[in-house]
Amino acid sequence: MAAVKNGSIICWRGIPLYLTFLAMKNTKKEPSEKILSYTFEEFVDRVKSFHGFEAIGVMVGGFMVDLAYRYLSTKGLFDAVCETPKCLPDAVQLLTPCTIGNGWLTVVDVGRFALTLYDKETGVGVRVFVDPVKLEAWPELKAWFLKLKTKKEQDSDRMLDEVRRVGAGICGVEHVKVVDRIRQKRHRDGFAICLVCKEAYPATDGPRCLACQGERLYETVAREVTDRQP
Amino acid sequence: MAAVKNGSIICWRGIPLYLTFLAMKNTKKEPSEKILSYTFEEFVDRVKSFHGFEAIGVMVGGFMVDLAYRYLSTKGLFDAVCETPKCLPDAVQLLTPCTIGNGWLTVVDVGRFALTLYDKETGVGVRVFVDPVKLEAWPELKAWFLKLKTKKEQDSDRMLDEVRRVGAGICGVEHVKVVDRIRQKRHRDGFAICLVCKEAYPATDGPRCLACQGERLYETVAREVTDRQP
Repeated sequence: MAAVKNGSIICWRGIPLYLTFLAMKNTKKEPSEKILSYTFEEFVDRVKSFHGFEAIGVMVGGFMVDLAYRYLSTKGLFDAVCETPKCLPDAVQLLTPCTIGNGWLTVVDVGRFALTLYDKETGVGVRVFVDPVKLEAWPELKAWFLKLKTKKEQDSDRMLDEVRRVGAGICGVEHVKVVDRIRQKRHRDGFAICLVCKEAYPATDGPRCLACQGERLYETVAREVTDRQP
Repeated sequence: MAAVKNGSIICWRGIPLYLTFLAMKNTKKEPSEKILSYTFEEFVDRVKSFHGFEAIGVMVGGFMVDLAYRYLSTKGLFDAVCETPKCLPDAVQLLTPCTIGNGWLTVVDVGRFALTLYDKETGVGVRVFVDPVKLEAWPELKAWFLKLKTKKEQDSDRMLDEVRRVGAGICGVEHVKVVDRIRQKRHRDGFAICLVCKEAYPATDGPRCLACQGERLYETVAREVTDRQP
């Protein structure tokens, strides 16, 4: 697997690519034990408060976001992609302006523990992933990541200690250009009232909303008589 | 549209349903100007900090979560569903223990501005939606909700004032049972290393990860030479 840095002809997976975006100034700083502006302990507290418990995946995700920031151009606005809904989206939501609700974070579940921060205008960005080869020296983390132990068998103190010591050292970095399909948001030009449920929905979805077209969400529904009128 | 409360035979959309779950103690409290424990202004600040700006959708979503809590049984653990990725998931993530990353919040994009909090064991829960009929008395909110005005034409101060005054008064409530398909999480029994990208992925996805099976995320990829080893 050949990979060449910064503005040369790139051969990777056998395909030569001329990636001018790699010429962008690489302002990479040295890794530290901090996760952006947080100490490890401060980030543990933030994760507990938002995610409910100090999930190893969100802690690793914190270091991954920190690593992505080190490679990211300081210019422009960026969006985020997570390749799994497990844990990683919460690290992104805690550490970047990107959330699910503001649309700057997209989850595409292909089951890989990877995230990308990319320029929303160009799609050019930095992908950080966990590299299984680098897990070899960290047995408890490896067992967690590859699900080699049950939850009961895992030693959570040891896992947390390994995360603290290795930081983003189990990760790899790729320079990527995100495809348009993921970058293009679903725009809603107008709304209609669904003939069946009487709720508003994007008019482009057809004469009924998607739920009433067959995307069944509920087995049973009973409307509450609500008397509070505006 | 007939709807009868609490343990009777329910006729709704022409189907009689005997919903014993409606007999659960309805501990509904009177609506207030607070959003759970937050004042309106405190919640505006929380929305700005997490979502990036005081989005009307998250503010309305706050009142919707508050309303759902009033109907929710105090027993058991609950999960959440949002029927749109726009704004609502952030209200849920700010006000409940449910996040995208911990898997207790699911987004099923059918384009309706509605959320459900439901018992994770039984699927029984409370759905809150915006009722277009109730929007009639709130012209600025109606224009925002149905996209009758462009962003430039919207009067955000007036919208915010209308949200504060009406609270959850533009909403309706339904008692629902969430279908198993939404309740069942995608469990990952084991991981394999993808023959193409060399990353870990759920073994049940096949001999390669979903991204390398064709779910293309990136136009170009170039791997960074990372020298930091564990």
